[in-house]
Amino acid sequence: MTQSFPSPAAHARAVLAELGVSGLPADGGIAVRCPLDGAILTQVAYDDARAIDAKVSAASKAFRAWRTVPAPRRGELVRLLGEELRAAKNELAALVTLEAGKIASEAAGEVQEMIDICDFAVGLSRQLYGLTIASERPGHAMRETWHPLGPVLVISAFNFPVAVWAWNAALALVCGNPVIWKPSEKTPLTAVATQAILERALARFGDAPEGLCSVVLGGRDAGERLVRDPALALVSATGSTRMGQAVAPIVAARFGRSILELGGNNAMIVAPSADLSLAVRAIVFSAAGTAGQRCTSLRRLIVHESLVDKVADAVEGAFSRLPVGDPRQAGVLLGPLHDKAAYDAFVAAMDQARADGGTVSGGERLLIDEHPEAYYVRPALARLPAPSAGMQRETFAPLLHVVPYRDFDEAVAIQNDVPQGLSSCVMTQDIREAEAFLAASGSDCGIANVNIGPSGAEIGGAFGGEKETGGGRESGSDSWKQYMRRQTATVNYSGALPLAQGVKFDL
Amino acid sequence: MTQSFPSPAAHARAVLAELGVSGLPADGGIAVRCPLDGAILTQVAYDDARAIDAKVSAASKAFRAWRTVPAPRRGELVRLLGEELRAAKNELAALVTLEAGKIASEAAGEVQEMIDICDFAVGLSRQLYGLTIASERPGHAMRETWHPLGPVLVISAFNFPVAVWAWNAALALVCGNPVIWKPSEKTPLTAVATQAILERALARFGDAPEGLCSVVLGGRDAGERLVRDPALALVSATGSTRMGQAVAPIVAARFGRSILELGGNNAMIVAPSADLSLAVRAIVFSAAGTAGQRCTSLRRLIVHESLVDKVADAVEGAFSRLPVGDPRQAGVLLGPLHDKAAYDAFVAAMDQARADGGTVSGGERLLIDEHPEAYYVRPALARLPAPSAGMQRETFAPLLHVVPYRDFDEAVAIQNDVPQGLSSCVMTQDIREAEAFLAASGSDCGIANVNIGPSGAEIGGAFGGEKETGGGRESGSDSWKQYMRRQTATVNYSGALPLAQGVKFDL
Amino acid sequence: MTQSFPSPAAHARAVLAELGVSGLPADGGIAVRCPLDGAILTQVAYDDARAIDAKVSAASKAFRAWRTVPAPRRGELVRLLGEELRAAKNELAALVTLEAGKIASEAAGEVQEMIDICDFAVGLSRQLYGLTIASERPGHAMRETWHPLGPVLVISAFNFPVAVWAWNAALALVCGNPVIWKPSEKTPLTAVATQAILERALARFGDAPEGLCSVVLGGRDAGERLVRDPALALVSATGSTRMGQAVAPIVAARFGRSILELGGNNAMIVAPSADLSLAVRAIVFSAAGTAGQRCTSLRRLIVHESLVDKVADAVEGAFSRLPVGDPRQAGVLLGPLHDKAAYDAFVAAMDQARADGGTVSGGERLLIDEHPEAYYVRPALARLPAPSAGMQRETFAPLLHVVPYRDFDEAVAIQNDVPQGLSSCVMTQDIREAEAFLAASGSDCGIANVNIGPSGAEIGGAFGGEKETGGGRESGSDSWKQYMRRQTATVNYSGALPLAQGVKFDL
Amino acid sequence: MTQSFPSPAAHARAVLAELGVSGLPADGGIAVRCPLDGAILTQVAYDDARAIDAKVSAASKAFRAWRTVPAPRRGELVRLLGEELRAAKNELAALVTLEAGKIASEAAGEVQEMIDICDFAVGLSRQLYGLTIASERPGHAMRETWHPLGPVLVISAFNFPVAVWAWNAALALVCGNPVIWKPSEKTPLTAVATQAILERALARFGDAPEGLCSVVLGGRDAGERLVRDPALALVSATGSTRMGQAVAPIVAARFGRSILELGGNNAMIVAPSADLSLAVRAIVFSAAGTAGQRCTSLRRLIVHESLVDKVADAVEGAFSRLPVGDPRQAGVLLGPLHDKAAYDAFVAAMDQARADGGTVSGGERLLIDEHPEAYYVRPALARLPAPSAGMQRETFAPLLHVVPYRDFDEAVAIQNDVPQGLSSCVMTQDIREAEAFLAASGSDCGIANVNIGPSGAEIGGAFGGEKETGGGRESGSDSWKQYMRRQTATVNYSGALPLAQGVKFDL
Repeated sequence: MTQSFPSPAAHARAVLAELGVSGLPADGGIAVRCPLDGAILTQVAYDDARAIDAKVSAASKAFRAWRTVPAPRRGELVRLLGEELRAAKNELAALVTLEAGKIASEAAGEVQEMIDICDFAVGLSRQLYGLTIASERPGHAMRETWHPLGPVLVISAFNFPVAVWAWNAALALVCGNPVIWKPSEKTPLTAVATQAILERALARFGDAPEGLCSVVLGGRDAGERLVRDPALALVSATGSTRMGQAVAPIVAARFGRSILELGGNNAMIVAPSADLSLAVRAIVFSAAGTAGQRCTSLRRLIVHESLVDKVADAVEGAFSRLPVGDPRQAGVLLGPLHDKAAYDAFVAAMDQARADGGTVSGGERLLIDEHPEAYYVRPALARLPAPSAGMQRETFAPLLHVVPYRDFDEAVAIQNDVPQGLSSCVMTQDIREAEAFLAASGSDCGIANVNIGPSGAEIGGAFGGEKETGGGRESGSDSWKQYMRRQTATVNYSGALPLAQGVKFDL
Repeated sequence: MTQSFPSPAAHARAVLAELGVSGLPADGGIAVRCPLDGAILTQVAYDDARAIDAKVSAASKAFRAWRTVPAPRRGELVRLLGEELRAAKNELAALVTLEAGKIASEAAGEVQEMIDICDFAVGLSRQLYGLTIASERPGHAMRETWHPLGPVLVISAFNFPVAVWAWNAALALVCGNPVIWKPSEKTPLTAVATQAILERALARFGDAPEGLCSVVLGGRDAGERLVRDPALALVSATGSTRMGQAVAPIVAARFGRSILELGGNNAMIVAPSADLSLAVRAIVFSAAGTAGQRCTSLRRLIVHESLVDKVADAVEGAFSRLPVGDPRQAGVLLGPLHDKAAYDAFVAAMDQARADGGTVSGGERLLIDEHPEAYYVRPALARLPAPSAGMQRETFAPLLHVVPYRDFDEAVAIQNDVPQGLSSCVMTQDIREAEAFLAASGSDCGIANVNIGPSGAEIGGAFGGEKETGGGRESGSDSWKQYMRRQTATVNYSGALPLAQGVKFDL
Repeated sequence: MTQSFPSPAAHARAVLAELGVSGLPADGGIAVRCPLDGAILTQVAYDDARAIDAKVSAASKAFRAWRTVPAPRRGELVRLLGEELRAAKNELAALVTLEAGKIASEAAGEVQEMIDICDFAVGLSRQLYGLTIASERPGHAMRETWHPLGPVLVISAFNFPVAVWAWNAALALVCGNPVIWKPSEKTPLTAVATQAILERALARFGDAPEGLCSVVLGGRDAGERLVRDPALALVSATGSTRMGQAVAPIVAARFGRSILELGGNNAMIVAPSADLSLAVRAIVFSAAGTAGQRCTSLRRLIVHESLVDKVADAVEGAFSRLPVGDPRQAGVLLGPLHDKAAYDAFVAAMDQARADGGTVSGGERLLIDEHPEAYYVRPALARLPAPSAGMQRETFAPLLHVVPYRDFDEAVAIQNDVPQGLSSCVMTQDIREAEAFLAASGSDCGIANVNIGPSGAEIGGAFGGEKETGGGRESGSDSWKQYMRRQTATVNYSGALPLAQGVKFDL
Repeated sequence: MTQSFPSPAAHARAVLAELGVSGLPADGGIAVRCPLDGAILTQVAYDDARAIDAKVSAASKAFRAWRTVPAPRRGELVRLLGEELRAAKNELAALVTLEAGKIASEAAGEVQEMIDICDFAVGLSRQLYGLTIASERPGHAMRETWHPLGPVLVISAFNFPVAVWAWNAALALVCGNPVIWKPSEKTPLTAVATQAILERALARFGDAPEGLCSVVLGGRDAGERLVRDPALALVSATGSTRMGQAVAPIVAARFGRSILELGGNNAMIVAPSADLSLAVRAIVFSAAGTAGQRCTSLRRLIVHESLVDKVADAVEGAFSRLPVGDPRQAGVLLGPLHDKAAYDAFVAAMDQARADGGTVSGGERLLIDEHPEAYYVRPALARLPAPSAGMQRETFAPLLHVVPYRDFDEAVAIQNDVPQGLSSCVMTQDIREAEAFLAASGSDCGIANVNIGPSGAEIGGAFGGEKETGGGRESGSDSWKQYMRRQTATVNYSGALPLAQGVKFDL
């Protein structure tokens, strides 16, 4: 039974009203289209250069105050943010669905990730551990302390419109840094709504400095202006490899710091011992979920030659039965591609797969609710005899390439033979294969999973990848150190002045 | 009583012979001049492009073998290197003196630093700790492992011709990475000698892969060729800010990793409560030692107005009495500037200080042993009424700028108000000042010391700095992580496939 | 202006009703007296042996389930506990005041500490970091994992009737362990109320196993029965050194684990450079606050001979002016001693000080509101010419011993020359003294502070002490490891069986 | 071809002479018998009470000096010890063979372990990391430092006569503690020889305090005297559970610290997917190597019912072919039991196995070289239908019990159902079984291996076990913390005195 929903634009207005966000949509502003129906979802006003500079300037000023606020107190702000996110979870998730096209469960999961990172960051706020270190000199005490770094710029992409900000902001804030957020042009509403939720936390917190957190709406030029600004100590940028390639040298040349989360081209190896039922479920979720628009979406499937047809058939079958449609609809597992450009890239990638000698099934466009500018598609499977040119590229769409392998070393070699290095996984019950995959000569990715898909998944681990993925790490483990500067201090409390390494310099 | 020494060139030949290094000097090669007498010390042959590419290629091949050698076994190579360095300490130190112009005690200290980092790295070779991490999903185990990264390029500067290589190489080797070393054009002999010492360790070790460690002799073009090579996963470059500004964007654009150790402009604050005897000794060693050619040399002295004349007078007196001369000579504390360019920069900096309203004492050139092309100088003190334009720049020479301050916050502001961020220190007996200096709103440098000079000093701490110093960290603490890639792995050992964050996707 | 309060018993009934705690007071049970008026506060029923064993048995069973619940999910229970504590903060603090006699601000602070540790533990629940470790054998992966330990027994004392439970329980729960709580006989109501608050969290959590957390009310025999039970993997006991001396060997003999938080005999050194205004405030709060009934109360004051009279006079003056009275009363800073035994010990300690050659001021008993069985006293200062026999003992009362010292080494020696080793502090502006105090040859206590009193203070650090204090550590840093068992695992994923250390054993 | 060896006594004299150890054997002293021939190997003089007290007193005095020696300098002593051990490796290993009866390769491996831990400890000596911790109060800096603890008593057992000392001593020394060693009565020569080797290192080191390291020769009363001495801050005791049960409460009652390494009863699970060739080799080495006299010897084999006969047959065959004899002989893999008591226990355990319904093969005594008082035996295999009473006990002999299991949970339950908790392993290719074994509900041992035997193996991990094994951890990971005391320090560098948790106490 099909539920009935308001138009996305009306839906968004209603949710924003519930959240108490006013001033949007801004008539006469830049139009933002909704992937659900291809129609205008809202209009927004972009920040001009003066407004941008004012936000940077306010962040710099806020930094001087915020850095001296004790970290556990900074953590209190993040705790309050977590509370407000819990309270507004449904509303924010609804906006994620409307702007990014995710199904409700995934949208709720994205907000949950925001909440989780807040909890984690609150705990961190009483740690931020440096080291005390044994000194070689008598009467000397050595220690390492982590200090706030400076204002942080977060550039986020449309496909995780709010979680990526939260990963960065929760850590940046407890680490003592203001945050400026430049969201994707495609998803300004979720950013504005998140900022409103944050404002509630700030109000309850009481005395945070003005300009601690702000959102800059704008296009590529706004992003570039921010990237070039020497006041922004750290640029955490999520997006395409091309974007990263532009951003990284600019930041490097001004001795800024970058966290880059760029393209992935994630693979799964299916070994003969794999639990195939588990594997197929993992494949379908990983390749087709979020319409293949996750950084960690599965794009390459490397299956032992003895199983390749069986696995491909099973996936093909599941693809053909996946419920596609309005992601607000209960039961729907596959929402739309984001826009026409995404659809065109999908078609081009399928064509490439065919040109590479592959056979492609699925991939049809589906018209839903008579929205000719919405791009719903059936996921596609490209069976290839061997790794192809097209498999070197990341296409943000539900297209899965399947190739056979003969022995495990070959499978690992295929997995590694792409320029990207985000995520990878293997389905096997064989511990030798599993551990070999996780070893120095195994997967070259930042994430390597066994018997689950390539999802990054939990906020307790560090998220990010190698090679063209950019090398950044966000979220758990010691990712927080990137948001701080390290200071090595030695205090001489003796009355003498011994030199290290036995050097003598007697006047 | 003055000792008598052979000419530097003859001295170098004798030491190289003792070390068993053959093939040098290479007649007809590029001439290398000795700072002690300004004469040709040796001639060397530069690697051409083909030779460079062959070394990179060999390193890449060696990497595939070395990364699978267990880390404690890799540590054994570094342990043997430490043993060989202990055995050859005097000889290598002699070469450091001849090429870099350091006095014997400092040259020996530099080799000791190599030995220390070997000991430290051997211990690390059984650690390289990643984490096991609590997973939110039942039947899942999460862990983080650090894997070898790839061949490492070390670019070192003339002033620490061997220690910087050792800091990098000892860690890189235990971390599983081959090392290519591009030493300064000014100090090829120490590099070649170090390589010979390493070869002995390799011979004893037995089965290290070919091409694991190599030296590339050459100029800026050789360096640039290496920096651009995508096979070199990490570029650890020590030198000027200008060099770093050139290197960083190139490496960033190819998603390589950099460790930058660039310019310092290190300051000391002398507070009213300071132990002045200690302070003056620290100042003289820090400002005049190594002829002001250390990355951490003291260049700016910020003294409370009540003491500024007293401190300046004492330093001036010590400067005027410092024994300058052939650094091989016992008792000599100050050897030569490296070359004419260094001398010219010294003179220019003194002129600038005068132009900025300062009074300069010292700075005279001293002719030693009738070597008109050797540049021995008396250290200079520039008294300035306030921070000046010239104090914004690093000049690699024994020129110390002195300015007064009124209150402690002002002193910290002066300390921080330069583009560089390597090292800093305060002389005070007051714990409030000391801790304020080490706090988030205190020194913005990577190194901050209390009651010692700005020396980085011990290999147990992380060495490096912020801002134009480049942000890199070498040596102790968790600097080793930069030489490895992090992998976050989750193993599902259950029969189910739960998703994180409560996401549901049931086929 | 004096506020009017209900009788403590009526007050307690009202608060319990607000908290929804029923079944108390239990008529005919064991009477619990209130320090505020010496009258019966409530009556409670003690658990008999059968009830105790049932609770242990339920905990053991709960352990088998709880240990497999993912730690972040366990953290969710603790997060909910934190929320419920926030909601019930005032009520629980009121009970702390009624049972323990603390002033409102301190009682609220104690509940805040419960909340803080919950936040901290929630963060930990996604960490519980073990290590991955470099193995010396090819094809082997080594790692260390921390697993749940088993049911934890918490024995708490009257003076921190709820915080100590929370320190232990929050960590124990995220670490995967059930908790049995044996509160002091003097403070059952706060325990029962806390359990009720926890039940709310458990209800919201949903599926925690039965018997995960329980309270055992009883006397010494109940405690001993629990201590001997081999099912209780860890005994975390706070109380007197005598109690610890009884508990420790029993637990050791059954290879159980202990965390002991026993007697303190905390000192402050006041150096000539001290900020005396700060020092006096710190002294008065530390020595007289909570009527000297904190583990970290200041009992010994070691003052430089040049200042000793001045400091003693200032403290004496402050003591004489301290507002003593019903701790519910706004403005009152000093509530009652807990009971007659405490008062008798106070009097005996003052007598001992006189017998030791000291002069004692203050110490008078004050009758408040005509409650002859309540023991309100004025804090006492004992001036002694040198360290005395009486200063070797901890007396839980507001009696501060003052002795002079000549040089700093002597001061440190006096500080260390007692059997206890909990907390210590120095007031000095001199960094040499401060750092010497914190060095290997300085204070021998678990806590060493500079320019604050001996309070343990923040939950981010580890709390506990050496020598007769028992060696345990609770709360922050890696204290959580005591609640887990460590497992070192090596996985051989090669096809070979190399032995470590080069051992050969070829069949 | 059989080699010819001198008598053990003559052999020992020759080796001691090579090592320059004089004064031994002491005629008229206590006789020490050699397991190789049952004859007197040497005679030694025991320390009397006065001598013991003098060594403790010297250690206490040495502690006051050693604790202030910088840790990296202390590491230098351990580095020199490692060098001396490398130089004397063959000699010391020969003594291990003579005293403990180990084959040459294992004896050499034991000395290698000493060397490895020295290397590791040298690295540690520049770490000994505490933490800097974010404070909740403005103007406060919190840190944790690890300080030397005090003299350490090492009680070692005959089966690892030198390695266990080295594990403890190398860490204790870099941690700043003197070490008193009470070796087994059965192995005084290796202790005396090790001390002589250490003296060489001390001589080269130069200025270590007198009494830093000493050996106490004696019996149980000497051990008890030491255990009771409050000057010995840490007792690290390796031996039987009975010994530990005696030691632990004594140390606990005086608030000393213990590291207990007691009985193991180590099991292996062989699953259907196991690599049987690997498994059998692992079993034979683990069960028969060192004549079953390792703490980690394999005593229980839990095999899937489908394989149990096949595995048992293969092990039986290997046992029957194992070369037994003089452990100095090349090719011999199995030396003697230590003495008649060991043999009697072996026989009794075989009898028990039969009484428990088992079938025992092997176990015959072999007369070698006509030495009727030497106890050479063939390893024994006891096949049992189900876990038996006899399998609850550790017998230090080459007796392996085999039982079948049906499903993996049952196998884990059998593994865990003994009072000891040292080591455990599983042979399986199935990652689900492997990870389940390593999970919270898997093995309850301190060591859990996959596809290797139960050996603890590498010094980089922490060694030790749970339950009756005593809970101690030695060697790698953070075991070093047990040798230090932790100090939590907060420095207030502000002019204010804020209290934590928002407490107010305004005078």
